Amino acid sequence: MNAKRLSLLQNALRAAGLDALALNPGPSLVYLTGLHFHLSERPVVMFFPLEGAPAIVLPELEMQKMADLQAEVKTFPYGENPAGWETVFRAASDALGLEGKLVGVEPRSMRLLEFLQIQAALNSTEWPEAEDIVGTLRLHKGVDEISAIRQAVGIAQAALEATLSQIKIGMTEKELASELVLQLLRHGSEPELPFFPIVSTGPNGANPHAVPSERKLQAGDLLVVDWGAVVDGYISDLTRTFSVGEVDEEYRKIHQIVLQANAAGRAAGKPGLPCSAVDQAARQVIEKSGYGEYFTHRTGHGIGLEAHEDPYMRGDNPQLLEPGMVYTVEPGIYLPGRNGVRIEDNVVVMETGTECLSDMPRELRQVG
Amino acid sequence: MNAKRLSLLQNALRAAGLDALALNPGPSLVYLTGLHFHLSERPVVMFFPLEGAPAIVLPELEMQKMADLQAEVKTFPYGENPAGWETVFRAASDALGLEGKLVGVEPRSMRLLEFLQIQAALNSTEWPEAEDIVGTLRLHKGVDEISAIRQAVGIAQAALEATLSQIKIGMTEKELASELVLQLLRHGSEPELPFFPIVSTGPNGANPHAVPSERKLQAGDLLVVDWGAVVDGYISDLTRTFSVGEVDEEYRKIHQIVLQANAAGRAAGKPGLPCSAVDQAARQVIEKSGYGEYFTHRTGHGIGLEAHEDPYMRGDNPQLLEPGMVYTVEPGIYLPGRNGVRIEDNVVVMETGTECLSDMPRELRQVG
Repeated sequence: MNAKRLSLLQNALRAAGLDALALNPGPSLVYLTGLHFHLSERPVVMFFPLEGAPAIVLPELEMQKMADLQAEVKTFPYGENPAGWETVFRAASDALGLEGKLVGVEPRSMRLLEFLQIQAALNSTEWPEAEDIVGTLRLHKGVDEISAIRQAVGIAQAALEATLSQIKIGMTEKELASELVLQLLRHGSEPELPFFPIVSTGPNGANPHAVPSERKLQAGDLLVVDWGAVVDGYISDLTRTFSVGEVDEEYRKIHQIVLQANAAGRAAGKPGLPCSAVDQAARQVIEKSGYGEYFTHRTGHGIGLEAHEDPYMRGDNPQLLEPGMVYTVEPGIYLPGRNGVRIEDNVVVMETGTECLSDMPRELRQVG
Repeated sequence: MNAKRLSLLQNALRAAGLDALALNPGPSLVYLTGLHFHLSERPVVMFFPLEGAPAIVLPELEMQKMADLQAEVKTFPYGENPAGWETVFRAASDALGLEGKLVGVEPRSMRLLEFLQIQAALNSTEWPEAEDIVGTLRLHKGVDEISAIRQAVGIAQAALEATLSQIKIGMTEKELASELVLQLLRHGSEPELPFFPIVSTGPNGANPHAVPSERKLQAGDLLVVDWGAVVDGYISDLTRTFSVGEVDEEYRKIHQIVLQANAAGRAAGKPGLPCSAVDQAARQVIEKSGYGEYFTHRTGHGIGLEAHEDPYMRGDNPQLLEPGMVYTVEPGIYLPGRNGVRIEDNVVVMETGTECLSDMPRELRQVG
């Protein structure tokens, strides 16, 4: 349990006019308490009131985690029969006096499994979306958090460098992805990766969120690798694009354009500027080159305990950059059915500008 | 898209009196369509009507996946601004005529992020919990599915054997877990593991769902390893308990008891018997030995595309075993603050009994 963060949370809840926050397992719960649970068929919910100790509903078999936590938390364990859930959710609600109260929830994490139980127990009429409450706390990273992300960047870069020498024409995307995971672990990443590396070649690279397939690397392909490491729960999220053997002139050209867009996006961040400025700086380069319609996503997103979190570098996002924010800059060009390019770096907002945490060469390197 | 499963789904929806099913990304969507999406801040929902093609709401940048699917699906893509979600959800609902209809949802997978959008678009008053609809289809595994689980068991066993020789007193739980992941990948597991190995030692072993920590292996510890591999999306889920150096007589005794409980649980399954019979067979052994209160969880759960799915081996579960069901048998004894033992195998229900897919030695082996 992080007492300082808990106190900040209670202030934020009060300021937002909420009576409490209900969290199920996920990054916000980790941020506040350090508690990790897998999402499973057994609901887990922690209620954070404005004052005093939080309450948690959880399976009996997870009680050891609460003992290890050594913090003041009211626990409401249940046995293996789901018929027992109703009683413990009601008991937790009663213990904190939450019936009919205004309790915030995080729609991105909360499942119906937990929500239906909370709804029945509290019988409240309104469930304010409270993603911003913990989100705003998580938005401003402290030195420890930035240091962890910096280490995660270093591990990721070293792991990909170690993988590059082993790339051969004819190996599959899956084989390459597995080797990269091996190297991530060997270089010191925590093993529970928040996202599995994207390794996409040729036409698969035109899908920004491709899943590694059995497709074999062929001369003439572009190869997109989007990967990251984890340190103390904090992640890095990078992308580099390579040429497998020699590639078409147009592919060299779009790589060069994305390289310039990436540089423009990295240079654009500054405290006080809106997120949209970062998007516009990168997007302008690609639009001017005539490939604007093939850059189909925003320029970046925040990173931290999650691979995607605030702030989002969208052209319509007026949110202002502030020191301590960490985000990706990842413009791309995707030619459907042919190839794709993306180059992604991680930057942190400083007092006067930004620092780029990643420095792996971005130029089009040949592999295979 | 799996046409046969889609047709079975439509029959099941009709039989249940539902007008459609709404799925967000997860194992049921994979089962029916083969479509993989990461859960993210961008909602994805597929609507399955009683007749005709399904409709999907998804981010524009995921559209390549739909092209690759080569199936008849009505697509409703949205851009990067969440303000556009409402329109596309409404359009999808209109295209299938779902307004006010009875649409089933899966509480274990569906998040409020998606549900709030569906609710606003369809304006239905009732949202039947429909976990059993696809769940029942997934419950009966075909030969291909059982073959994949069998391979996943083989890979997991080979990977742990390769890891055992490298275990040394003084290494941390995390280091051991990382080495095991390396070996899982090297032996051919798909790299996106459905659950990260549990490696717990000494007092940590008393927590059935421990997360690998910096604790170092010490002589006298019991070492619990709960791990699995993935083949074609299908998982294995095994546990073995080892002694680090020499251990107390009581720990040898509880290991022996759990071994007998595991054997009793494996032997108990038969078509036509209730799941409770499997639980009772294993639990009786532990209760008779006087350690009943330290076996704090059910005896097992189904496995397949998920690490936990139907059927559940609970003492109060009347569900009858049928050929093609695959589940774990995993009794344990957990002595709080001291040590824990669990031994887990994977069995498949055959026409006349069960076959155990795992055969790695269960006896208390000494490592380190």
